[in-house]
Amino acid sequence: MSAPISRYPVPSLESLPEDIRARILAVQEKAGFVPNVFITLAHRPDEFRAFFAYHDALMEKEGGLTKAEREMIVVATSGANDCLYCIVAHGAILRIYAKNPLVADQVAVNHRKADITPRQKAMLDFALKVALASKEIGDEDFASLKVHGFTDEDAWDIGAIAAFFALSNRMANLIAMRPNDEFFLMGRVPRQK
Amino acid sequence: MSAPISRYPVPSLESLPEDIRARILAVQEKAGFVPNVFITLAHRPDEFRAFFAYHDALMEKEGGLTKAEREMIVVATSGANDCLYCIVAHGAILRIYAKNPLVADQVAVNHRKADITPRQKAMLDFALKVALASKEIGDEDFASLKVHGFTDEDAWDIGAIAAFFALSNRMANLIAMRPNDEFFLMGRVPRQK
Amino acid sequence: MSAPISRYPVPSLESLPEDIRARILAVQEKAGFVPNVFITLAHRPDEFRAFFAYHDALMEKEGGLTKAEREMIVVATSGANDCLYCIVAHGAILRIYAKNPLVADQVAVNHRKADITPRQKAMLDFALKVALASKEIGDEDFASLKVHGFTDEDAWDIGAIAAFFALSNRMANLIAMRPNDEFFLMGRVPRQK
Amino acid sequence: MSAPISRYPVPSLESLPEDIRARILAVQEKAGFVPNVFITLAHRPDEFRAFFAYHDALMEKEGGLTKAEREMIVVATSGANDCLYCIVAHGAILRIYAKNPLVADQVAVNHRKADITPRQKAMLDFALKVALASKEIGDEDFASLKVHGFTDEDAWDIGAIAAFFALSNRMANLIAMRPNDEFFLMGRVPRQK
Amino acid sequence: MSAPISRYPVPSLESLPEDIRARILAVQEKAGFVPNVFITLAHRPDEFRAFFAYHDALMEKEGGLTKAEREMIVVATSGANDCLYCIVAHGAILRIYAKNPLVADQVAVNHRKADITPRQKAMLDFALKVALASKEIGDEDFASLKVHGFTDEDAWDIGAIAAFFALSNRMANLIAMRPNDEFFLMGRVPRQK
Amino acid sequence: MSAPISRYPVPSLESLPEDIRARILAVQEKAGFVPNVFITLAHRPDEFRAFFAYHDALMEKEGGLTKAEREMIVVATSGANDCLYCIVAHGAILRIYAKNPLVADQVAVNHRKADITPRQKAMLDFALKVALASKEIGDEDFASLKVHGFTDEDAWDIGAIAAFFALSNRMANLIAMRPNDEFFLMGRVPRQK
Repeated sequence: MSAPISRYPVPSLESLPEDIRARILAVQEKAGFVPNVFITLAHRPDEFRAFFAYHDALMEKEGGLTKAEREMIVVATSGANDCLYCIVAHGAILRIYAKNPLVADQVAVNHRKADITPRQKAMLDFALKVALASKEIGDEDFASLKVHGFTDEDAWDIGAIAAFFALSNRMANLIAMRPNDEFFLMGRVPRQK
Repeated sequence: MSAPISRYPVPSLESLPEDIRARILAVQEKAGFVPNVFITLAHRPDEFRAFFAYHDALMEKEGGLTKAEREMIVVATSGANDCLYCIVAHGAILRIYAKNPLVADQVAVNHRKADITPRQKAMLDFALKVALASKEIGDEDFASLKVHGFTDEDAWDIGAIAAFFALSNRMANLIAMRPNDEFFLMGRVPRQK
Repeated sequence: MSAPISRYPVPSLESLPEDIRARILAVQEKAGFVPNVFITLAHRPDEFRAFFAYHDALMEKEGGLTKAEREMIVVATSGANDCLYCIVAHGAILRIYAKNPLVADQVAVNHRKADITPRQKAMLDFALKVALASKEIGDEDFASLKVHGFTDEDAWDIGAIAAFFALSNRMANLIAMRPNDEFFLMGRVPRQK
Repeated sequence: MSAPISRYPVPSLESLPEDIRARILAVQEKAGFVPNVFITLAHRPDEFRAFFAYHDALMEKEGGLTKAEREMIVVATSGANDCLYCIVAHGAILRIYAKNPLVADQVAVNHRKADITPRQKAMLDFALKVALASKEIGDEDFASLKVHGFTDEDAWDIGAIAAFFALSNRMANLIAMRPNDEFFLMGRVPRQK
Repeated sequence: MSAPISRYPVPSLESLPEDIRARILAVQEKAGFVPNVFITLAHRPDEFRAFFAYHDALMEKEGGLTKAEREMIVVATSGANDCLYCIVAHGAILRIYAKNPLVADQVAVNHRKADITPRQKAMLDFALKVALASKEIGDEDFASLKVHGFTDEDAWDIGAIAAFFALSNRMANLIAMRPNDEFFLMGRVPRQK
Repeated sequence: MSAPISRYPVPSLESLPEDIRARILAVQEKAGFVPNVFITLAHRPDEFRAFFAYHDALMEKEGGLTKAEREMIVVATSGANDCLYCIVAHGAILRIYAKNPLVADQVAVNHRKADITPRQKAMLDFALKVALASKEIGDEDFASLKVHGFTDEDAWDIGAIAAFFALSNRMANLIAMRPNDEFFLMGRVPRQK
């Protein structure tokens, strides 16, 4: 009864272009397994390269947001878009970065009640408005971020992560991407060192 | 009373990395002007590169969809997301590719009443479901496409374009990207050679 | 592949009652063509008379709103209702009245980003609330208009135009009224004298 | 604590143009009181004339719909638009025409559960789609009406009544039109001759 | 054409457990008839007992809300949920408790325009937010109640009544519970003693 | 930064009526801790008693649904209502009953993609319609259940569980009920005996 990891053909590692195979092997080395987003999107090599270049440009850059905060944005907006893969996989990463086994489930369901700072709540308010009603974004939204010390460049980061996962959530839902079983438990057990 | 082209600083061409400047000059050469999406997104070079790599992978690839059909997807989903830049700029491109001065406005407002084929209506039904309710995409949606001769790879193309412009629409709304004045008229006058 | 101008029979000019034919000929004289709203609604003479009497009472009266502002209300609320005929036909009229080739597309998609005054944005906020959530109209909405110098009679004008086009948009969608090709280009070329 | 009958000035009968006064006196003669829609809309004589001309053209014409059925459309769509005046005033008229003290409350809340015929349910399905999602009206909706014996002209009647009360509901909400106390009880007591 | 009172079998009084029969007979004694909610829910005795125990705990307790105010909450939230049984039956009770033949219809459609106090409007704003968007309830909502003198315990009462009728409305809609004819007229005639 | 378990005072076990204390001690005995729903709702003893009587009548009765299926309904509808407490606490119970560490997260986000049977998907379709659009429940929904072998009594069970958690979700959101930390991990580790 367990569903396949993608509605589309999943390539074998050997069949992939060298750069993509190298990237996937590096991830496997680090994580201990290959997250399904890599191997399922590799069905389209050019799109794969652009997707991860974009991802890295947003998630691994320097700036005013911590890595855990970037993942909070992913989890909160994926929750609003009901994307199982992104909630589960990025929820795991958020738990690890935040060293907090509870925050991912909280943020995915209702950031208003999560154990996060008022500054982080303002960040997620902005991200969710970009995700759900970007037409209505205006000066007052940027002003609400400034109250908490976010710069305009931070606002771009927040909004761009929400925008990128608008794409990512839709791709995962389109191909029925299945989260790896490993993600469900990662970061939940306190002493996971 | 006319708004700036972006809420963010707009770089000068000279200040840009060589590859980005070259890309922009090439577009200017072809179009006769620099579409604002290029110069405004160049504020973030790494994101610029990923954005256009992704765009090209989807919009310039071979496949079962014509160039005009790809632009229809952009215009219809951007209409649903109320993104002025994308409706106006891609509406212009659609008019030119389709050699039809009316179709862009029709598709942006209500594809059900547009002068397009039943096959194209089914394509836009699928694209709009990915744009607005990707959680609910299921076997029956792929089956509806098959009735009109679309393959699974065509379905990926349709859905991925809708997903990419989910990102693009949100970025344009986030930075208040302004369409170039030139786009509003392009492709409307029959004999525009 | 081009659709008919109405789902219903379209009367010949000769078959129409004298007063209706006269009105249509006068419009044709002025515009150079017969806008489809006239000839398609003439299928029902009594409703035609009431429709245009109402239209004229709202759109050609004296008052605190300019003719261009009245058309802005039509275009913004028709955009919210996704009515192709009204967006295209009244968009043309708005471009001409405002002597501005861009404003109609801007207002139809997102008045928050349009090249209009803060007073006009407040006017369209009010109009859109009447169009979309009239149940919630209250003292605070009238107060927001007063800040910009609108009187209670101006508020009636704004709300009544939004209400009338709530009817008009639904009639156009009901009968699948098609905009005349002429409207798509009108007012877009600067020197159209 | 009882609210005024309109947010706007209410004219005295004597101050009104002769034709409007005559119409109002005739209604008063028949109903025993002046329904507030007449005296509150008389604040704007030209709009008053067009409003009631339109109303009469739709509600008093011959055709495939009974008078009770026309009022059902008014009550069902006014329920969907949360317009107190129209639900209460036309609910009273519906009870009288249908000689049924229960049907108005049923139809205002949920026509699916009302004591009406399957044909009337199909009629109200169509009317509510025009009221709430006219953009999506298509061939299949006309076909659903035909199954129950409705002609295309009946479909125009149904849709046009829904469209006219889209206007009427918004005007009543705009001016905070208050239903006359008399309407609440009318047609509820079996023997009200 | 009149629908049955429930989609499910309706037990005879004699077939019911003693405590349930006693409760129903007591209601009949007081009201003069058996409201359908009693006899239809008696199909499931254990759920019946819990339902009415919950109802009584909320509706018959002491506290800062009058009985009429508790019924206002029921009618307003049942209006938002489109539950015919609860609007009609509790509307009747509200008219009687409030000694006001108009208030129930007003509150069911739009409490903003009802003849109630500003304090009662704030109470219904809170109740409707619990009914429709409980996820968003926060400190600011409790603060809005305090402005009008409501305590935190009053807030629990308001929210719990809205929550209980979220259940009740769904049960009534699930089983297609029909309001007794008697309710439609109760409390409408001023001198009904 | 960790929020309290309720917005309201939480009673000490000793201060509670004997029957409520006994119930809570029994749960603690079995679970190893006191789930917060017990101790926070005990703030109102009468409502507590009715709440758990209702809960037990629905969740512990015999019938066509397994215990795991009942919990699926809770988790799916609580997901739709964004209720953190119910998703987390009942998600834990579902994982244990179903002996499946993945199913709770799947069902909370999107039951269409969960590893459940087509019969269970039909069950959740029905439950979600009761939760979100009970007004529209009709014969066709009962027919869809019958296709999968569900009886009318099963349909009552499904709908009543969805209705009860419509109440429960709103109460939890109203008082900001916090899930116990223990629930987040329960049932996730295969061999958790």
